[in-house]
Parts: sequence; structure tokens; C-alpha cells
Amino acid sequence: MVEQYDIVIKNGTILTMDRENSVFEDGQVWVRGDALAMVGIPDHEPVRTRKVLDARGGLILPGLVNGHTHAAMSLFRGLADDLPLMEWLNNYIFPAEGRMDTDFVHAGTLLACAEMILSGTTTFCDMYLFEDQVARAASLSGMRCLVGEVLYDFNSPNYGEIEKGFEYAESLILKWKGHPLVSIAVEPHSLFTCRPSLLRRANNMALKYNVPVVIHVAETLSEVDQIKESYGRRPVEHLNSLGILGPHLIIDHAVHLSQAEMELLAHHRVKVIHNPESNMKLASGIAPIPDLMGLGVTVGIGTDGCASNNNLDLFAEMDIAAKLHKVKTMDPAIMDALTVLRMATAEGARALGMGRMIGSLEPGKRADVIVVDTHKPHLTPMYNPYSHLVYSARGNDVIHSIINGRLVMEDRRLLTLDLKDVLKRAREKASAVRRWVLDR
Amino acid sequence: MVEQYDIVIKNGTILTMDRENSVFEDGQVWVRGDALAMVGIPDHEPVRTRKVLDARGGLILPGLVNGHTHAAMSLFRGLADDLPLMEWLNNYIFPAEGRMDTDFVHAGTLLACAEMILSGTTTFCDMYLFEDQVARAASLSGMRCLVGEVLYDFNSPNYGEIEKGFEYAESLILKWKGHPLVSIAVEPHSLFTCRPSLLRRANNMALKYNVPVVIHVAETLSEVDQIKESYGRRPVEHLNSLGILGPHLIIDHAVHLSQAEMELLAHHRVKVIHNPESNMKLASGIAPIPDLMGLGVTVGIGTDGCASNNNLDLFAEMDIAAKLHKVKTMDPAIMDALTVLRMATAEGARALGMGRMIGSLEPGKRADVIVVDTHKPHLTPMYNPYSHLVYSARGNDVIHSIINGRLVMEDRRLLTLDLKDVLKRAREKASAVRRWVLDR
Repeated sequence: MVEQYDIVIKNGTILTMDRENSVFEDGQVWVRGDALAMVGIPDHEPVRTRKVLDARGGLILPGLVNGHTHAAMSLFRGLADDLPLMEWLNNYIFPAEGRMDTDFVHAGTLLACAEMILSGTTTFCDMYLFEDQVARAASLSGMRCLVGEVLYDFNSPNYGEIEKGFEYAESLILKWKGHPLVSIAVEPHSLFTCRPSLLRRANNMALKYNVPVVIHVAETLSEVDQIKESYGRRPVEHLNSLGILGPHLIIDHAVHLSQAEMELLAHHRVKVIHNPESNMKLASGIAPIPDLMGLGVTVGIGTDGCASNNNLDLFAEMDIAAKLHKVKTMDPAIMDALTVLRMATAEGARALGMGRMIGSLEPGKRADVIVVDTHKPHLTPMYNPYSHLVYSARGNDVIHSIINGRLVMEDRRLLTLDLKDVLKRAREKASAVRRWVLDR
Repeated sequence: MVEQYDIVIKNGTILTMDRENSVFEDGQVWVRGDALAMVGIPDHEPVRTRKVLDARGGLILPGLVNGHTHAAMSLFRGLADDLPLMEWLNNYIFPAEGRMDTDFVHAGTLLACAEMILSGTTTFCDMYLFEDQVARAASLSGMRCLVGEVLYDFNSPNYGEIEKGFEYAESLILKWKGHPLVSIAVEPHSLFTCRPSLLRRANNMALKYNVPVVIHVAETLSEVDQIKESYGRRPVEHLNSLGILGPHLIIDHAVHLSQAEMELLAHHRVKVIHNPESNMKLASGIAPIPDLMGLGVTVGIGTDGCASNNNLDLFAEMDIAAKLHKVKTMDPAIMDALTVLRMATAEGARALGMGRMIGSLEPGKRADVIVVDTHKPHLTPMYNPYSHLVYSARGNDVIHSIINGRLVMEDRRLLTLDLKDVLKRAREKASAVRRWVLDR
């Protein structure tokens, strides 16, 4: 049998992000089907190859993992900024969300997927409404995702009453089971919008189907106060009292935590997603990420919805994460570039329960690979690739992207979406948003 | 006489950044020679035009002003990161700087100018060694600059003893007097590296020639402690006691200030340059910018040297500035997008003493103009251009740039420099740096 490969990437420095952070200069990545067949310095040239990609002497690394977003909120980007949180939500975001439909979420998610692929993200975790549309749009664009319908005590513009919400959540699990790109989670919104019975039921559904639970926790001080007042406990203690803490639980934000709560998270192997830009922009606070990592907690990184960011560029998110904790702790050595890049790759994948499948370039793993062009003034000369990726590079330095063995971007050209059409639909939806919100 | 224009920009929304923040949708900018002849909605089409630039429905705004950098440090980007300040300086930066020469600084500054033009910056303020080379490189690349040789108590790799340093500083003033792009400042390094007599003498030279003084002030807590110990006063009080405070004084960083010091700066109309990314990365602290602005102080924004950033992209700097003060003050309404964009344009120009010449698009001002392409997923749809520029855009969304009436970038192609040659020279210099520092 003659060896055959679907894609071979040549002429780049490979940052594998494996456990040893192995690096191969002038290495190659061989892809067969949806998987990585060879990563490193080959002992022979691949015999038959359908497609050869030139990394142009740049960097080859795992596709980035956006651990928390609300993709369709791309249609609300810049709609309102620099406002107190409740004014932003009540006067702009909620009125717009109340008028949304399936087509709106589909169009917004395609827009977000275009931006994410163009900035090097290959996997995202989403929480929103009409989430079946998010799964469809992600699948269409060729992106890997973990998605779930948001559940809360009040009626939803999608499913109506919560009983229907659980039906919808279960139908997502059943519909997308076994899909190569789409995974489903159960996603109660937060502790202050979900009564204990909802949280327990959501958790039981997740355990039944062996899928993750995704939830916002301890994002703001007012949330912490509210949970303490309602339940006499801090947020993570409340989750613990409900028996929900566990390795299947992914909590977003985790800004305001006591030492005891951090130890609970570590003990129960709960996963944390850090969203520094959103936490800064909404003036929520600074999450104690170095402390959590010190306790062994797996931490990924996310952009949050781009209405509170306002972009989906994980390179910018990494840069800010590294710097924010330095100035918070007044320690320039904390959260070094490699640590932060691991949050966006190997650790981010582990946080989403995908650590065996993606997050590093190792034979047998799914082929989610990006190539960064370094022949640019802001990336020349190069002493340390990790430093350049975190502190100097931006999303549009990524030139090629492969997800699950499929080439989705080549030379910055999106291959899975008609970009012109995606932008046209987005502008049409924005006209509706203006009518709903700004021209009232 | 038939009207003639050298460059006409059409088909964009003009953000003038004038005092009223006037905006013209589908406006035009007419350039004649080095100046703006018309900005807004024309009442007739220009009759003769040498060059028409299409803004493609995007944004037309003043070129950005980088208020503080050490351009040639682009050759040290990523050489060492995530280290305690003194280890970074003593083991990496100082040993490399000790070996530098004129050619090194020229090559490094060209690299920096390429990056700055490609990311929308048209003016920069520099402090470094061999500063005549910085002026030459800026002039060659077509950039506007305010530069000055760094002066301090110890010997310099450029001029040797301080007496020669003052001669060099004066020669720069005389050599570049009247140059359309290059302005000179007198630049004592800092209060902890310059004895009072040096500071007074530098200030007197600046006053004699009517040029600014540029100096690092109150960047770190240890600097404040050192100045208090040496002089019994805090840094700005020390400057005040030396009689140096005044509208010609530009202080970089201004991180650690007492209320009394802020009032002194306001009273004496001292200018401040904010460098949030460097202050975060080196764990220096967070400057009290909203407080300074509340007192009426003119504040510009800078990247600092890109070895402590690690890029020269003012779009990223604006984004971080807006967010950092929100999370510091826990007020999401502080430092809105327009305020921050003004720091990088009109206020930045005023901070450098160039407020009458540049910083806004108004007839009679010099033609320093950039065009941002908004037909991209991360800038679509657009509800608010200021929000997009600060929170969503990145330097490489800038497509055209004009400085002093000269087209320096068109469709992202640098017209003033041979980029391939600039990158090649940078890589050669990096080989030397590796020998000097990493391979010892």
C-alpha cells in the first residue's frame, strides 16, 4: 500500500503544544482524513499528497480554542458601549434579543465564524438562543464547537417556557450526537437567573448524556451579593451545595472567588474559562487566574460575546491576559507567554473536555492546525515564537487554517463561506437592529 | 487660475477629530501640497487632481500619534520577556545597547517606521541613542517625528560623556531646524538617572531654542521611593523645585502620582503620555489618567519601546487603555471610545506641541490622514465608528496613509521603504544581538 496524505504543511517551525512543548524547526505536518498522521521532522518525503501548504518559514501550531462566546452577538458589536451594565443590557441588548429569530442567529453566527477562522480560532464554545442555528452555522463554516441552548427561569424568545427549554436542550443532544464538529452541552445561564431546581435538572441531563454543563459564575460583585443574600452562600459554595461541582462543569468568568471556592473548584476538577477583555470592558473585575492555576485548575480563555469585547480575536485576548495579571499582581514574571498560549490551545481544549481530541499537534489527534506568517515588520526579527504569538501577533497574521482535516482558509481566503454574502446578510440584520433599538 | 489638488480621498466617512468631533458621511478630503485644502462635503467636484484615493466606504481620520517610543528597540522585541525589570534590563537590554552603533539604530528605526506606517501611525515621539539616525530613518520613511538624544549622568554608547551629550543635543536642534517632518526635543532620561544640574541645564537648552523637554517620570514605585530618599520629595515635586514644570514639558508614564502632583501638572500645563501596555507588561502600575483628564491635563498615548509591549500598534494600545481604566475604577462608562481616540489624535498632537499643525482634519492643517477599510467581518455591521476603531479594529485594517501630503502607503503597500530590504537588515542585526546577548 502506498502512503497517501490529504494535506502536507511544509517549511515552518512547529509548536506542538504537547506536554513537553516540543518544537520542530523546519518541520512538517502530514494530515490524512480528519487526523494528524505525522508531526515533526520526516524521515522521508510523503509519497502521494493531494495538497501541499507552504508555511513560508512561519509558525505552525494548533488552532486556537475560544472557550466562551455568544457568537451571534457579533450583530450587536458596537451597538452600545461605555455604559453601566444594566443600562447596556436593558436598553440595548435585551430589547434586540427579544426580537431575534432563527435567521438572525444563523446570520450572526456565520459572521462570527468568518471572523474566528480569519483570526486563527478553530474551536469555540457557545451559549445563546436558537442554538441549533449556531451548530448549523458552525458546521457550514467548518468550525468545531461545543454549543448549548441557554436555560433560565424566565421565558425564552426561542423555546418559551423552561419545560420546552429542556426538551430543546435534549433534542440538540440527540440531533447532533456523533457529529464530527458539533458537540452539545447543557447550559443554564447563571446562578442568579436559574433556581436550584433548574440547575439540578440541567446537571442531571448532562450527567445522563455524558455532556458538559456550561454556566456563567461569579462574573460580578453584585451577582456574588445576590447569591449570598438568596442562599446564604457564595456562588461556588452554592453550586457545591447543589452537588453540581465536577469535572464536567465549565464555569465562565470566575472573577470573584474566595480561597475556599478556589479550593473547591480544584478539588472537584471544575474547568474555568477566563474572559479578561469582557471583564475589563464591563468593569466586572480581574479573575484570580494565577491562583487557580497554582491550585491545578484547568483554565481556558475566551472572548465572551463580541458586544462586550469587541472582537473575537484570541491573539488580542492572550496579549491582554498576560499583561493584566502582571499589573494586577505587580509581578512581571507571572503568566508568561507560553502559559497563556497553552490556555488558548492545549489547556483550552482540556477545559472543553476535548483534550484527547485537539489542542496539540500530535499524531492521532484531529487535524486542527493554523499557520502564522512571520514575514512582517511586527514579527521580525524573531527570538522567541511564544513571545511573538502572545505579545506581537494579531489574528490576521494567520494565513492558513485546517479544521478536522479540512482546509478552511488558504492564504487568508475563506474556503467554506461566501464572505461577501455573509457581510451582506449581517448588514441587513443590523438594519433591523437599528429599527428595534436605536430608532425607537 | 484652475484649482489643482495633489490627492483627493473619496467615498468614506470622515472623522475630523476637530473640537466638535465633526463627522461627514460620504465626505471628501482634498490635499494640496503638504496641507489639507478641503475636508467635508464638497460643493463641486475637484477640477484637476493628480491622485484619487478610494476609501471604499470606510473611515477617514487623522493619522495616529504615538506619543512615546524607543523606535530602534524593535530589534529587541521578544529578546526577553516575563522577567523582573532589573533582570530584563541588566542581562538583556543594557548589554545589547552597549554594543549598538549608528547603523543598528538606523536599521531598527526603519523597521519600526515600517510597522508604524502599516498600523496607521503618522507621527511618533522618540527617545533613544544615536538619535540623528532616528531622524534620518523617519525622514526617509516619510514619518513625522519629535526626537531627542537621551541624556543621563553616565557615559553614553553614542556621545560618551555628558558634556558631549549636550553638544550632540544642540547639534540635533540646529541640524534639523525647519525640517518639514523632524522636530527635536531635549530629553533627559529620568529623575533617577539625571542629577539636578543635568536636568536644569537640559531645561535651559530647551527654553533657549523653544523646543520641548521629554522625560520619563514616576514610572515605577521604586523610582518614587528613590527620588523621595534622594531629594525628600516625590518626582513631580522634585521637578517643580527645579523650576522645570511648564507647558513645554512632556512626561512619559506618570504612573505613580499624588493628588498634589496631579494638581501641579495641571497648573503648569505639563503634558502627559500614557503607556498602558508597557506599564502592564513591566508590572509598573496603572496611571491615574481619568483623574489627570478631570483636572484638564492634556494626555496623549504611546506604545513605549516595543521590547516592553511588544508592538507599535496604537489601535491595540487604545483598546487596552479604554478597558484598563474601566476595570481599575470598576466604572464601565469611564474612558469612552471617543475620548481614547482623541488621545491618539488631537490630544496626542497637542501633547507633543503640534496641536496647531496636526491631530485633526481641518483645512490649513498638515495633511496627515489615514483610511480604515471596514469591509471585514470584525468591522461589520457598524453602528458607531469610534467604538469600532478603539475596540474592534487593528493596525492592519488601515489601507492608505498620507503624511505631510505625501502618500506613504497605498492599499497596504509601503511606498517609501523597500520592505524586503528593511526586514533583511533587521534579521542581520538580530544575528548580532544573539551573539552579544543570548550566546554569551
